[in-house]
Amino acid sequence: MLSSTFQIRELFNADWPATWAVIEPAFRPGTTFPHPQDITSEAAYEIWAAGSAKAYVAEDESGGILGTYYLKPNQPGRGSHVCNCAYIVSSAARGMGIASKMCEHSQREALQEGYRSMQFNFVVSTNTGAVRLWQKLGFEIVGTLPEAFDHPENGYVDVYVMHKSLLG
Amino acid sequence: MLSSTFQIRELFNADWPATWAVIEPAFRPGTTFPHPQDITSEAAYEIWAAGSAKAYVAEDESGGILGTYYLKPNQPGRGSHVCNCAYIVSSAARGMGIASKMCEHSQREALQEGYRSMQFNFVVSTNTGAVRLWQKLGFEIVGTLPEAFDHPENGYVDVYVMHKSLLG
Repeated sequence: MLSSTFQIRELFNADWPATWAVIEPAFRPGTTFPHPQDITSEAAYEIWAAGSAKAYVAEDESGGILGTYYLKPNQPGRGSHVCNCAYIVSSAARGMGIASKMCEHSQREALQEGYRSMQFNFVVSTNTGAVRLWQKLGFEIVGTLPEAFDHPENGYVDVYVMHKSLLG
Repeated sequence: MLSSTFQIRELFNADWPATWAVIEPAFRPGTTFPHPQDITSEAAYEIWAAGSAKAYVAEDESGGILGTYYLKPNQPGRGSHVCNCAYIVSSAARGMGIASKMCEHSQREALQEGYRSMQFNFVVSTNTGAVRLWQKLGFEIVGTLPEAFDHPENGYVDVYVMHKSLLG
């Protein structure tokens, strides 16, 4: 039984196996992320937690990983004041508001890190729950990429670029 | 004296020093590309010609490099039917239509490689010559990223996402 109270903290290397167990079921169906459906744990680690990325986990009272997100510069150099994040919630922990809480947490972290705004580069338009949630949290659709995602059931579908200023 | 006739062909490793001599003056001012202004030749090679990228050069009759571009998937997996390109023309070879010719060449190559469309992720809005050229060549602005580029003279300026279907 998952507890409904949780904390969000930085991911440590020792968390990776439990975190990958949350990420893997989100990557395998190929319905929301563009990454190869057969991505390995190692390749996912490179995307999620290596290089310039800072990764976080939502952890319940008994240390179970309920969700994870990363925060990194969206571009190098003169584009590095805009950050990029991605969030995944364990299928067992849906409906607890974890995605919202992680997104709010990431905005506070991003401000502390000196970012001015946050951009999601690749929100699949058929992922309507995510689109609505980001809009509720203040993100706007600033771009529509025609047929940029090859959805396994729906074929080529549009992708949104979403953006929020962190400066209020 | 540069010849006004040129051919476009794939970049070979031996071309890199002459190609870097074209790229370096475009990266150093920090006015059109987001990459760090102090980027090294090695780091630029990783962006331009390594991994999944195919790189090309525009070469004059005497073997001088007048311009260069890369072509690569814009996303992995289920986003990999959209390609991304970037083009640089030597400052000594402006006004010869090399950017246009490279862009047209890249669209033919992209179609042959099986891509369905081409996307430019980061066209700085103050780079009006580039914006107009891409529009003339059939690209549309599909997104506007607010203040996504820290221009060394103009401060935070918008960036465009531009897109063209290759399927006609």
